Amino acid sequence: MIKTDILIIGAGPTGLFAVFEAGLLKLKCHLIDALPQAGGQCAEIYPKKPIYDIPGFPEILAGDLVNNLMEQIKSFQPGFTLGERAETIKKLDDGTFVVTTNKGTEHHAPIVAIAGGLGSFEPRKPLLDNLSKYEDNGVAYMIKDPEVYRNKRVVIAGGGDSALDWSIFLADIASEVTLIHRRNEFRGALDSVEKVQELKNQGKLNLITPAEIIGLNGENKLESVLVRKISEAKEEMFLEVDHFIPLFGLSPKLGPIGDWGLEIEKNAIKVDTFDYQTNIPGIYAIGDVNTYPGKLKLILCGFHEATLMCQSAFQKIHPDKKYVMKYTTVGGVSGFDGTKKEAPKAVVKKIE
Amino acid sequence: MIKTDILIIGAGPTGLFAVFEAGLLKLKCHLIDALPQAGGQCAEIYPKKPIYDIPGFPEILAGDLVNNLMEQIKSFQPGFTLGERAETIKKLDDGTFVVTTNKGTEHHAPIVAIAGGLGSFEPRKPLLDNLSKYEDNGVAYMIKDPEVYRNKRVVIAGGGDSALDWSIFLADIASEVTLIHRRNEFRGALDSVEKVQELKNQGKLNLITPAEIIGLNGENKLESVLVRKISEAKEEMFLEVDHFIPLFGLSPKLGPIGDWGLEIEKNAIKVDTFDYQTNIPGIYAIGDVNTYPGKLKLILCGFHEATLMCQSAFQKIHPDKKYVMKYTTVGGVSGFDGTKKEAPKAVVKKIE
Repeated sequence: MIKTDILIIGAGPTGLFAVFEAGLLKLKCHLIDALPQAGGQCAEIYPKKPIYDIPGFPEILAGDLVNNLMEQIKSFQPGFTLGERAETIKKLDDGTFVVTTNKGTEHHAPIVAIAGGLGSFEPRKPLLDNLSKYEDNGVAYMIKDPEVYRNKRVVIAGGGDSALDWSIFLADIASEVTLIHRRNEFRGALDSVEKVQELKNQGKLNLITPAEIIGLNGENKLESVLVRKISEAKEEMFLEVDHFIPLFGLSPKLGPIGDWGLEIEKNAIKVDTFDYQTNIPGIYAIGDVNTYPGKLKLILCGFHEATLMCQSAFQKIHPDKKYVMKYTTVGGVSGFDGTKKEAPKAVVKKIE
Repeated sequence: MIKTDILIIGAGPTGLFAVFEAGLLKLKCHLIDALPQAGGQCAEIYPKKPIYDIPGFPEILAGDLVNNLMEQIKSFQPGFTLGERAETIKKLDDGTFVVTTNKGTEHHAPIVAIAGGLGSFEPRKPLLDNLSKYEDNGVAYMIKDPEVYRNKRVVIAGGGDSALDWSIFLADIASEVTLIHRRNEFRGALDSVEKVQELKNQGKLNLITPAEIIGLNGENKLESVLVRKISEAKEEMFLEVDHFIPLFGLSPKLGPIGDWGLEIEKNAIKVDTFDYQTNIPGIYAIGDVNTYPGKLKLILCGFHEATLMCQSAFQKIHPDKKYVMKYTTVGGVSGFDGTKKEAPKAVVKKIE
């Protein structure tokens, strides 16, 4: 069982910054995220997109914002359970919580902060009869570890940035990459489209368009896929493959958290603006996942909410301590790893 | 009369970021600040101090944060009334406001946002009988335009960073710089102390310590100061000077805003967390100057408050318009100067 002070569900920018504010209060954090890496939407959906409304950054790429936040919280040594979705919550007699993921990983903490963004991102799946039979047996909807595909035959389906980018990436790793899309046209960053064209011309990538996968076959694991061309002739062909990765986008769903007994309004969790606590004491909701009068779903608002949440969490964990806020400009930042950052001290020196 | 959509009182980080959020809503801003430059405390008190709790910046110098914010709001062309203190406010029959500064400059706007930080920074003054006679007639407590001192004889009093830094700066401009301090020891950044020592050794700066100014003389303007050494002999000397600049620090005062009829609690303005509006409709208070349950005086909280305030201001200015928030990642940023920043568009392109 993983133990921590604040269990944060969702490792997007708001969840990550909560680690920093908690760290200033000497509280440890652990984060759960359904995606295979930290950063939430910023890392998964639009890492290369510029954001213009993060205060102090006239422009910053979403992926760079995540990297900066990871650097900012590094010395507070957060734990991560990635690629798993928070599924159930149980309140123990002492008022603390146990949160279990879909993979069975258990987490124990006195405070739970839901920073779930628009929800956990669920992949859009193709409509194929025996799809579930091959899930984790050849079919995957996101790529957690590219090494799994080394020297394997991979079919990717999709026409957007994810399909393009992973085709490019795996062309160097897999023994064979086939990209299948229902149209001849792809929609993505210009350089990604051009790179796929180049790989195709070099024979490093097979392209079958317009086409779709209409069947999956294999005894215990995926062995081949049936491809049908979208044309008058509707010709069909079997492709022997080890992996099929449909990348049709992610669609956010509040998911199992919706069944935790929290007050929900328009698919978001209702909170009090005093400390962003939900109707269940000890469970907070911060960032895009929450709602209150005047709520704006902006990253910068999540930062504020995370900060006030941590103050309230501190009071719950240490009801006997009075916390006096210290400015980082004055007190510096003392990491859990023994590092200390602080402003150069003024000297008192005689001039003669 | 200066006219604008949102009149912001206080040009610290919170006030500056409000310009950005207002700009996204196509609202124009004008800022008033008692200090001679934008940036508030960050620029005036600790420009070279690192801040560690601005989200996304593992470390940033306060002065750099201000510079970044100025860059971020540049295309929204804010107006500035600097070196003047907002003194009186008058509500007109149509519900709009006229704010007049201590220098008589008038500003007219439908919305007033007080982003006054800890208050306007009032200089600590030396206790000298006829001090007020020479104010703006040879005595100044902050340096607005260094060119005023070109080829003049200047006496600076004080023992901290401001006294050290301005002595260094004016040594190149004034015909004569004398630095007077009650102690032999100065308290400041090591390199500033060393630089003053060096200028003194080179004869480019006169140093009189431990000593204090005990009298000011002059017919219509300052002509000389009386200096007394702090020693047993208590020797006194007249120094012929054009300017006397006591730099004894700034002390924040809520000031005239305290008399505007706003609900005040512990030297801060009470607001509602829905939109950070005060008890007077149309007047908002954001950043360190406001208070509400759970309030933390942090720059990152001011950013959030400024953002929600702007949404509310938009509704007041355009009661008939329904504003649908657009993400900058999607809609980009359209400056009032005709510039447009936006993410590179995805292409739709055939691969063959």
